Amino acid sequence: MRGAMHKILSLSKEEQENGIATHSSGNFGQALALSARMLGIKATIVMPENSPQVKKNAVAAYGARIIESGNSPQSREDTLANFLKKSHATECHPYNDKQVILGNSTATQELLEEYDLDDIVAPLGGGGLLSGTLLAAHYLSPQTKVYGAEPQGANDAFRSIRDGKIHPSLQPDTIADGLRTSLGNETYAVIKEHVTEILLVNDKEILSAMKLIWERMKIIVEPSSAITLASVLKNKAYFEGRKVGLIISGGNVDLKHCF
Amino acid sequence: MRGAMHKILSLSKEEQENGIATHSSGNFGQALALSARMLGIKATIVMPENSPQVKKNAVAAYGARIIESGNSPQSREDTLANFLKKSHATECHPYNDKQVILGNSTATQELLEEYDLDDIVAPLGGGGLLSGTLLAAHYLSPQTKVYGAEPQGANDAFRSIRDGKIHPSLQPDTIADGLRTSLGNETYAVIKEHVTEILLVNDKEILSAMKLIWERMKIIVEPSSAITLASVLKNKAYFEGRKVGLIISGGNVDLKHCF
Repeated sequence: MRGAMHKILSLSKEEQENGIATHSSGNFGQALALSARMLGIKATIVMPENSPQVKKNAVAAYGARIIESGNSPQSREDTLANFLKKSHATECHPYNDKQVILGNSTATQELLEEYDLDDIVAPLGGGGLLSGTLLAAHYLSPQTKVYGAEPQGANDAFRSIRDGKIHPSLQPDTIADGLRTSLGNETYAVIKEHVTEILLVNDKEILSAMKLIWERMKIIVEPSSAITLASVLKNKAYFEGRKVGLIISGGNVDLKHCF
Repeated sequence: MRGAMHKILSLSKEEQENGIATHSSGNFGQALALSARMLGIKATIVMPENSPQVKKNAVAAYGARIIESGNSPQSREDTLANFLKKSHATECHPYNDKQVILGNSTATQELLEEYDLDDIVAPLGGGGLLSGTLLAAHYLSPQTKVYGAEPQGANDAFRSIRDGKIHPSLQPDTIADGLRTSLGNETYAVIKEHVTEILLVNDKEILSAMKLIWERMKIIVEPSSAITLASVLKNKAYFEGRKVGLIISGGNVDLKHCF
């Protein structure tokens, strides 16, 4: 939401009038749709056919136009490119965009205004939220260590940083559906320069942390958010006795099993 | 939590040293256990055998002693009475207690400090939370109307106010397990004098409101809390165009179906 809102606010008046468009399987599409409605701007969201119904419903309820694509990353991109050719809308990438990254960074800015922290952990998928976290900590609290938490079944960023080049996320297999995407050149550069370490967590550990947050904090978070707590519980030796901040973003869970 | 904490703080030093005890199927037991631990005081909670495991676990985790009773209200009371005979602990009734009611009233005090409200709706079981809500509104914002939301399957308070005498809750049948109890003389007196109206809601309406809160506010509330939103959605003609505050308390839900 922070990234989407900041991106729209950074556009010129004319660009804003022509509307914005993105492809997103979920949270970012909702955030862009809601930000656009709050600012009175047209939004078009390309969503894969297999997106959870709860996410499609939310995007539609926020007043955005939905265009369905196939389920492959290529099909999403082609569908968005076709739309952009026929309209004057500005593309807004969900994470590989400096303005989106800067918007995301405000979460960490606010966290650091309130607390002195030894460590911060952010979820790692395409890298937009982690990049914002890294930049805010670097400028506002340089002694704070920042970790990325990534699913073992979608560990392309871990391998990319290890090998010094971007590995695409080819066959991600994880319940954390917001973290299946590949790094972009913008996020790769920030993460490579600033991250302390990337912590890998499996789906069982993610679900266990998610249940703990639901039961004790009474907040509904999705697996892609709970992964930060999971990574701390898995690596107690890193964090014991230290003051740790966790970035949590997104609670889009299909609740049909609960009711 | 507010009621439990205020009750303990109102005791003398000597009473505090002798500890406190209550019978509670759930939320109040947890609240008293946690309040007592925060203040360094011994707590004993009588819980019926059929209490949800998640509630027993939480009480135990807060360091209180649990004594199991049978499942009938009579068995709970007898078990507590037996314990009180053998100890010097002070009994703390979950709702029929002026200090508990005053503690509960602080939720409404804070709400009214932040918002001017036309109406407030509070859940209605034993009447402790509604009584606190009524007293706070009466003294701090007398023009605000205060409603109680009660399950249709446990409508003893509705019938008690209608008939001018306390009807016990004999065979309550509702998913809102925190609202199955009967009024006490303290809560009956406050409600009779101040309540605008008692709104009855069925279990289907409660569950539908609960799902909406989970999905859109991302807060885990239990049926006994969601009932306030359910009563507003059911009675739109009462609340349309008005500024309405909802009292929500308790998110103890067994999440085993969700995971």
